[in-house]
Amino acid sequence: MYGNFSKEKLIALKTELEKTHEEYKSRELSLDMSRGKPGPDQLDLTNEMLTHCLDGDHISENGIDCRNYGVLDGIYETKRIFMPMLGVGRGEIIIGGNSSLNLMYDAICRAMLQGVYGGEKPWRMSGEIKFLCPAPGYDRHFAICEKLGIKMITVKMNTDGPDMDTIENLVSSDPEIKGIWCVPMYSNPDGITYSDEVVKRFADLKPKADDFRIFWDNAYCVHHIYDEPDSLLNILDECKKTGKEDMVYIFTSTSKISFPGGGLAIFAASEKNIEFVKNQLAVETIGYDKLNQLRHAKFFKDYDGVLAHMAKHRAILRPKFDMVLDTLEKELGILGIGSWHKPSGGYFISYNGPDNTARRTIALCKDAGVVMTGAGATFPYGIDPKDRNIRIAPTYPSVEELKIAMEIFCNSAKLASVELYL
Amino acid sequence: MYGNFSKEKLIALKTELEKTHEEYKSRELSLDMSRGKPGPDQLDLTNEMLTHCLDGDHISENGIDCRNYGVLDGIYETKRIFMPMLGVGRGEIIIGGNSSLNLMYDAICRAMLQGVYGGEKPWRMSGEIKFLCPAPGYDRHFAICEKLGIKMITVKMNTDGPDMDTIENLVSSDPEIKGIWCVPMYSNPDGITYSDEVVKRFADLKPKADDFRIFWDNAYCVHHIYDEPDSLLNILDECKKTGKEDMVYIFTSTSKISFPGGGLAIFAASEKNIEFVKNQLAVETIGYDKLNQLRHAKFFKDYDGVLAHMAKHRAILRPKFDMVLDTLEKELGILGIGSWHKPSGGYFISYNGPDNTARRTIALCKDAGVVMTGAGATFPYGIDPKDRNIRIAPTYPSVEELKIAMEIFCNSAKLASVELYL
Repeated sequence: MYGNFSKEKLIALKTELEKTHEEYKSRELSLDMSRGKPGPDQLDLTNEMLTHCLDGDHISENGIDCRNYGVLDGIYETKRIFMPMLGVGRGEIIIGGNSSLNLMYDAICRAMLQGVYGGEKPWRMSGEIKFLCPAPGYDRHFAICEKLGIKMITVKMNTDGPDMDTIENLVSSDPEIKGIWCVPMYSNPDGITYSDEVVKRFADLKPKADDFRIFWDNAYCVHHIYDEPDSLLNILDECKKTGKEDMVYIFTSTSKISFPGGGLAIFAASEKNIEFVKNQLAVETIGYDKLNQLRHAKFFKDYDGVLAHMAKHRAILRPKFDMVLDTLEKELGILGIGSWHKPSGGYFISYNGPDNTARRTIALCKDAGVVMTGAGATFPYGIDPKDRNIRIAPTYPSVEELKIAMEIFCNSAKLASVELYL
Repeated sequence: MYGNFSKEKLIALKTELEKTHEEYKSRELSLDMSRGKPGPDQLDLTNEMLTHCLDGDHISENGIDCRNYGVLDGIYETKRIFMPMLGVGRGEIIIGGNSSLNLMYDAICRAMLQGVYGGEKPWRMSGEIKFLCPAPGYDRHFAICEKLGIKMITVKMNTDGPDMDTIENLVSSDPEIKGIWCVPMYSNPDGITYSDEVVKRFADLKPKADDFRIFWDNAYCVHHIYDEPDSLLNILDECKKTGKEDMVYIFTSTSKISFPGGGLAIFAASEKNIEFVKNQLAVETIGYDKLNQLRHAKFFKDYDGVLAHMAKHRAILRPKFDMVLDTLEKELGILGIGSWHKPSGGYFISYNGPDNTARRTIALCKDAGVVMTGAGATFPYGIDPKDRNIRIAPTYPSVEELKIAMEIFCNSAKLASVELYL
């Protein structure tokens, strides 16, 4: 819309937006919409797990003393809770430590140094290692690749998931492509859930590399926010139909169910993958923290307990997402500045402004006391080629803080856009 | 002594020992002296940590919400407890997850894939990787090397630590030697503590490789059993004197202080190493479990609290070590069969029988219902060149179980020795 404005009108508007900006600045605010952190009220929901949960009881259902060494893949009752969450069987799951990011990093290191099930040799011994990176995506996925010297190839995101034509072409022709990052449900940052067709095409990829893996980071599988949640096909089931069940590694965690600092990370895959990985894991640890696994089992009791718990998170998060989405629509949508997907769950809203405005918008936000995720963070190597994507993380601030933070964000986005036309 | 026996006498003795063996077999026992696991009574000492320890209180001294993301290197009060345990400063320590074995594995993977502070390139890019392995040693150290394709070079253990002449020669001449495994106090399995001279010679190694590291697994640093504990020089202090403080990585854990399944692992090194490693760690995890760190801080309160707690462990373990050592002396020592170091702490007693008897002794034990650590486990690649070393782990069974297990062990050792002479 600004494109139709006269120069005089744009100058007047800019003056007005700058005045508002200065007013915000004078308040000396310190607000943070940069990271996908649960708020303290969400964490309070699980406090009981920290107190009487293990009173005098540290033995698992089948007699394991959870205080002592042993049980590499997780205790019986904890597996039982999380198997239905991912739709996998008892032989297809490992309950890990407190970080699914670490499980992913670790899986890549093992693949590089030791290889994967069915692969002829370790990744490091077959030339350059490349990963496909649908973007915008999760900055910490990309950071792992960058640190380990894995070459990242950006793949664009469509409204139903990553661009499968590109992925099919690349994966089937380049044996150096060993993996792809996916956040298939309520994707980070777009909040998009992969369509059934996209999942089926993933399950039928024909990789040139015999040791290719889909890194399926299903971090937000039960993190619905609105009444009509998205649904995602079970990738392992689909892969079984195509006979390619060894092609996918699935990850999730309770970081945003119980505690980000003290939750459980979960790895799921075909039985053959799990057996192979357990054999590798046996040299890197004697076992993960079974006491924390038992705590989770006693607190949630079963998968329904998890779902009931997520409804409590939802009640806290929904007003925050409403606030962000309503403010975006009211302030920017009607002006036609920028676009975003309205997510039904997850932890983020992904704003795409006019090209070449993201850095400037984020800088203006910072100047007025609002920290956003860094510009470019959602792209490989931190470079957003169009400089337009900004990840908004609405979960940590209170609704009141979010209100003012979003007003500042919108004013900054407008100002950055007006500057484009002058 | 058996060597002086007549053939008739040996045959009679063998018959007698076999009869005793059959008697043990008929009892259908199932006893385990194979792993260094604390007994349930030891774990009970720390039960309070699991109950009211965090009642309504999950904020660290300096205001960190331990339930949420953040703080890569560990919370303030937990560092304060373990700094004096290792004799290091606040900038020289990282509190990790539940497994020091995993910290070591992880440190090696990082070194292989990314390199170490001051190194020119990742280990994997400079030819074959080799580690020196004082042996008998810890089987899980050797398993890491074997799995990652690191070539192991065995170094003999003397009564004051590993043979430093060999180590100095090898390390200073071969740039492919990137590390050495050490359990410097109450070594696994011998129970030997490195002498001051040995520590000083370690601190003054002149490695040919600029990215060489001493892996100083100080697992038993406060695990004294007898009234006159060993003492160990502080390797980091000694390395500072020689200007080589970046050469050593120190590890320990509370696995045998609090819980093997739910304790804390600790990494210590020079400030430059710590800064470098933190930068690498930042991509592999957002942080370790701070709630468990807080639990430990509240339970132990300070380092004196740890020491007082270890006195309780000592009271439980001492009768077990007495039982093993007394039985060995009474049954084998007076016959001159085998030798062992009498440890003042740690978790093991290391028995060296006559050459070519370890496998047979362990097989006889198994036949009579007593599981020992596998023959050869204490050597690289599982091969004890003299087939004589057996690791005895006396901590898990009760004193009563130990009594019978040790009787069976001694009978087996005698029988294996008698068979040698026939």
